Amino acid sequence: MLVRVGIIGITGYTGSELLRLLYAHDDVELTYVTAHTFAGKTLSEVYPHYLKVTDAVCRPFSVEEAVQKTDLVFAALPHGMSMGVVPQLYEAGLKVIDLSADFRLENDRLYNQWYKREHIAPQYLEKAVYGMPELYREEIKKASLVANPGCYPTSVILPLAPLAVKGLIKWETLIVDSKSGASGAGRSPSQGLHFPECTENFRAYKVADHQHTAEMEQELSKLAGERVVFTFVPHLLPMIRGILSTIYLELSEELSEEEVGAIYSDFYNEEFFIRLLPASSYPETKYVYGSNYCDIFLKYDARANRMIIVSAIDNLVKGAAGQAVQNMNIMLGFAEDKGLRIVPLRP
Amino acid sequence: MLVRVGIIGITGYTGSELLRLLYAHDDVELTYVTAHTFAGKTLSEVYPHYLKVTDAVCRPFSVEEAVQKTDLVFAALPHGMSMGVVPQLYEAGLKVIDLSADFRLENDRLYNQWYKREHIAPQYLEKAVYGMPELYREEIKKASLVANPGCYPTSVILPLAPLAVKGLIKWETLIVDSKSGASGAGRSPSQGLHFPECTENFRAYKVADHQHTAEMEQELSKLAGERVVFTFVPHLLPMIRGILSTIYLELSEELSEEEVGAIYSDFYNEEFFIRLLPASSYPETKYVYGSNYCDIFLKYDARANRMIIVSAIDNLVKGAAGQAVQNMNIMLGFAEDKGLRIVPLRP
Amino acid sequence: MLVRVGIIGITGYTGSELLRLLYAHDDVELTYVTAHTFAGKTLSEVYPHYLKVTDAVCRPFSVEEAVQKTDLVFAALPHGMSMGVVPQLYEAGLKVIDLSADFRLENDRLYNQWYKREHIAPQYLEKAVYGMPELYREEIKKASLVANPGCYPTSVILPLAPLAVKGLIKWETLIVDSKSGASGAGRSPSQGLHFPECTENFRAYKVADHQHTAEMEQELSKLAGERVVFTFVPHLLPMIRGILSTIYLELSEELSEEEVGAIYSDFYNEEFFIRLLPASSYPETKYVYGSNYCDIFLKYDARANRMIIVSAIDNLVKGAAGQAVQNMNIMLGFAEDKGLRIVPLRP
Amino acid sequence: MLVRVGIIGITGYTGSELLRLLYAHDDVELTYVTAHTFAGKTLSEVYPHYLKVTDAVCRPFSVEEAVQKTDLVFAALPHGMSMGVVPQLYEAGLKVIDLSADFRLENDRLYNQWYKREHIAPQYLEKAVYGMPELYREEIKKASLVANPGCYPTSVILPLAPLAVKGLIKWETLIVDSKSGASGAGRSPSQGLHFPECTENFRAYKVADHQHTAEMEQELSKLAGERVVFTFVPHLLPMIRGILSTIYLELSEELSEEEVGAIYSDFYNEEFFIRLLPASSYPETKYVYGSNYCDIFLKYDARANRMIIVSAIDNLVKGAAGQAVQNMNIMLGFAEDKGLRIVPLRP
Repeated sequence: MLVRVGIIGITGYTGSELLRLLYAHDDVELTYVTAHTFAGKTLSEVYPHYLKVTDAVCRPFSVEEAVQKTDLVFAALPHGMSMGVVPQLYEAGLKVIDLSADFRLENDRLYNQWYKREHIAPQYLEKAVYGMPELYREEIKKASLVANPGCYPTSVILPLAPLAVKGLIKWETLIVDSKSGASGAGRSPSQGLHFPECTENFRAYKVADHQHTAEMEQELSKLAGERVVFTFVPHLLPMIRGILSTIYLELSEELSEEEVGAIYSDFYNEEFFIRLLPASSYPETKYVYGSNYCDIFLKYDARANRMIIVSAIDNLVKGAAGQAVQNMNIMLGFAEDKGLRIVPLRP
Repeated sequence: MLVRVGIIGITGYTGSELLRLLYAHDDVELTYVTAHTFAGKTLSEVYPHYLKVTDAVCRPFSVEEAVQKTDLVFAALPHGMSMGVVPQLYEAGLKVIDLSADFRLENDRLYNQWYKREHIAPQYLEKAVYGMPELYREEIKKASLVANPGCYPTSVILPLAPLAVKGLIKWETLIVDSKSGASGAGRSPSQGLHFPECTENFRAYKVADHQHTAEMEQELSKLAGERVVFTFVPHLLPMIRGILSTIYLELSEELSEEEVGAIYSDFYNEEFFIRLLPASSYPETKYVYGSNYCDIFLKYDARANRMIIVSAIDNLVKGAAGQAVQNMNIMLGFAEDKGLRIVPLRP
Repeated sequence: MLVRVGIIGITGYTGSELLRLLYAHDDVELTYVTAHTFAGKTLSEVYPHYLKVTDAVCRPFSVEEAVQKTDLVFAALPHGMSMGVVPQLYEAGLKVIDLSADFRLENDRLYNQWYKREHIAPQYLEKAVYGMPELYREEIKKASLVANPGCYPTSVILPLAPLAVKGLIKWETLIVDSKSGASGAGRSPSQGLHFPECTENFRAYKVADHQHTAEMEQELSKLAGERVVFTFVPHLLPMIRGILSTIYLELSEELSEEEVGAIYSDFYNEEFFIRLLPASSYPETKYVYGSNYCDIFLKYDARANRMIIVSAIDNLVKGAAGQAVQNMNIMLGFAEDKGLRIVPLRP
Repeated sequence: MLVRVGIIGITGYTGSELLRLLYAHDDVELTYVTAHTFAGKTLSEVYPHYLKVTDAVCRPFSVEEAVQKTDLVFAALPHGMSMGVVPQLYEAGLKVIDLSADFRLENDRLYNQWYKREHIAPQYLEKAVYGMPELYREEIKKASLVANPGCYPTSVILPLAPLAVKGLIKWETLIVDSKSGASGAGRSPSQGLHFPECTENFRAYKVADHQHTAEMEQELSKLAGERVVFTFVPHLLPMIRGILSTIYLELSEELSEEEVGAIYSDFYNEEFFIRLLPASSYPETKYVYGSNYCDIFLKYDARANRMIIVSAIDNLVKGAAGQAVQNMNIMLGFAEDKGLRIVPLRP
């Protein structure tokens, strides 16, 4: 029998991407989708690309209906709105995977500070498991509430974890220069994402001031066993999907490129979604387009005595909906790659 | 047991797209892939995005190996090369789906004229079935050699067929203005497709002189039962995937927009891959991105007494590899939408 | 002494483009710029790309200040707002070039019908001269109020004029298929122009229902000396600048491609901004990028007995601000190409 | 009387951009252009966007003709070809501005190592002045041979110079993460720049291995008065023009953001082409599009105790042809901004 799942907030980009992925998943059935603005309409009325894909009707949100119709729900709401909804679903006994930032930080003061709003459900922070399967698989299996990682954090934590857990990073030298496609900013139109001002353009933004910094530092600190602070600068790419993070650090031990490579091979040996690129293949975001892979490229800069790590993900897949489905697979006992064996779209 | 299939010419765009689609197909197994230039290399050495997707090794082409390893092959070779290879496969008893233009025209003189080269296997032209399932399903079922339609022709014939077969088109008024993404031109670099000269640019090309004209006129003539000649102007869009064709014609009978709509609903009633857009939804290529759908939009221009039909397809899917898989499904007796129930990628 | 000019509505795309062009004009001085939303701010505070270009301060609109500070003003306001402002400027004795659609139609009922709002200053319609220099140069010289043509109309009327005035067009066969860059829709963000939904996408819109149809039919009717109705379908390109219009028609006389070419050479012999492309050069919007040229390409489709004309302009230059400066040059007695000898930006 | 200038290699992207800029320059006359492949053709036959712009004819290269027809030449040849041509021009007594990399390095061994070819005219290296006007204006005034800086180096040296000359950089902490538009790779088609593989894609390349590293280290070492080695990683953006470099370093003294800002204001006080962005304006490549500006943005990351500097240039203007014209102005005694007062193109 199919497991019944719901999506709260189907019309945003992560909600839509969840639908795309779940449609190819044989063991679940999408039984409940909500959209505040479009309640009562069929999905294909809102988005014509869903014609013949689904005849689902957008519902207004209701805990009762969620409980009645689903076994697990994805909350794909904007940051700040999720914390009003997720606790109700949790208390009603549903398994919840939350794709917002609202339950990722363990400390509500950090949330208040970086997200510039007060957390209204801080008591749920400790109930949430950080949903990065490659690091927290066992906890996710038992979790009722999973906080799905942010897109930038996924592109940064995965490529740093092997060195972090071994204590091989001089943290004060860590610099992360990330570049993201525009879909990461969501579906709401704005001046900066108006097509004529975003295409054929490239910009830095929130320089050393991006809210994802807190999430990354929290997780890297846990891995490192010490308090980590580093420099993070995001940039906006004139393209839809993809994050490429270029990471610079000095090692705390002298290691050759091969030795570092071996540490990564070893650490990610069993992980289907992590791909270590050979030295001859510079990473491209198109290599992971539409897929749940996280590509990692390693280079030791011998001249400057510095390690360079480049990662690439699709921000809407491994950086959001794909990782959420991976978490669902773990929570429901399915094969972890179920519905996620996707060939990257190229060209 | 899985049916064994091969792809001759895996490294071009249609070959790659076939692999992407077949990877999601439960009833076939890709057992043989060839690539002249890269023979001996693994696919992921050639294209890093195939890492962990497949460990297939590119083979040089050999009829013997094809026969031994496969039950059906897709020929995804450049126009002109296919006619040297397909007859060998056909004579060896394999089912063949040819994605080139080499077996689409029934008349080799037309081929010589429009493709500027001599056809070297004209005796196979009559053996080939034109692989447009919505029109020739029964013939395809029994075919050993299927000539997979061109991308522009697919975007033009499907939206015209319902009126054509009913004799409702004044053919001398027919004008087709098509716009295609750049992947239609294939994988070989050229000045016109060099990124700095193709992006942020739009052009007309081969004005009233495109080789696909012959294929469209042949097929429309068959549907109409009379010799059809019309004006076709292709344009190049600064994007990867998608063809949108805007079609203008006068009807030979007075019909309302609703009556025309009813003719289309009726004609395509059972066709999963044809979607008739409501009047409120102007067609966008993104609605079909990565999928096998052909969207059709109808508008009667009452002021000028003229019918306007707009179609949209993904040139690499319904315009090439997707339609080929659809043909394979028919030839092998699978459900026609097997492996092709894909949610269009958006955003 | 420099002529003093002003721009009402500097922060929109046409206002900004006017500033760019006037900056390179030796005989005028920009002495007054208004911006409702940003009144009091320097332009470079609003748009950092103006740093070191100008220290102009955005002013709220005031007729008195306009009169005091300028000799000629460009109104670069949204459609519907202009008709509230232009009459005041006109009555105050200023020369006015209006870039909105508000004074282009000679008949306010047409305006009401196509623009879905009531015209509040219909008595000024007959005072306005349609500002297409290649056709109405003498009238523009004497005009106090010039209605600057729309972008689509410029791309359609200029390539049709030579045949229209000679009565060589079978009007009932005329079809115009236009494709425009996204800047034509202006600076206000919207869902359809949100970067992730506009890039890598192409769509038809307002099929046979675009408000510019009225303007084109009015002007073509004047040239033809008879009432003209035709089919116009606009499309949105995933790029910033450029309109390419593909125009289909039957000639009312039998003429060879060469004879048609001679008519165009003759008609536009003295026109610096009109360029007739040779048969070997298919038109590209990049050929006119940032410049005031209108490129025209002619092709006789002998098979279908139909004339095909393709035109290309930069919608913000010849389709808006450049044509406005050309009009200003005529009104002020400057050389018509003053400030407009610009090499198209390529790549 | 106009100074006569020539362009050797007019058909490449830097040659074309030179023509665009010189066309707007009142004091020079373009009297000689060469193009090996297109010798004998008019420029507008090669590039239709030059129709009505110029009727110049492409000539084969000849020192004699250069001497006879010009006073100053720009060499816009590919790296490696320039060193065969420039010495001839120099010895013939012409002023030469070379836009290739061939005369930028002072040491031919470095050239051999980084450019993987032997330098055939090493004796001219010391005759060449590094053409960065903001740093070497006096030397350029007297120079006969100017080596025009590379695009990446321009985007890196200008934003570092104020700190470098004051000894305020801990060089071992310096990391430069640069992102460039595709025109930087030149006009020759290649697989990586084939439109369908370059658009909607982003990649790192030549990680810590780019040949411009040598040029940057040479120049920064001169400014610093000590041997500088640092980490440089270039990336390829899916857009035509623009380089944005994000630069990370630790200061050797404790300075506030304001103090650093004051150092920059002071250093670049008189420089028209350097714009210091206010803290509220994150840099965008579109702010400098088509112009000769170099924008600089400063941010002190107090959490990580690190200075972040972001620069933006148009790689074809300040990064190539614009800087070359600026050098020409200095060499010929013109106002330095002559022909270069250009409003950035936006949108």
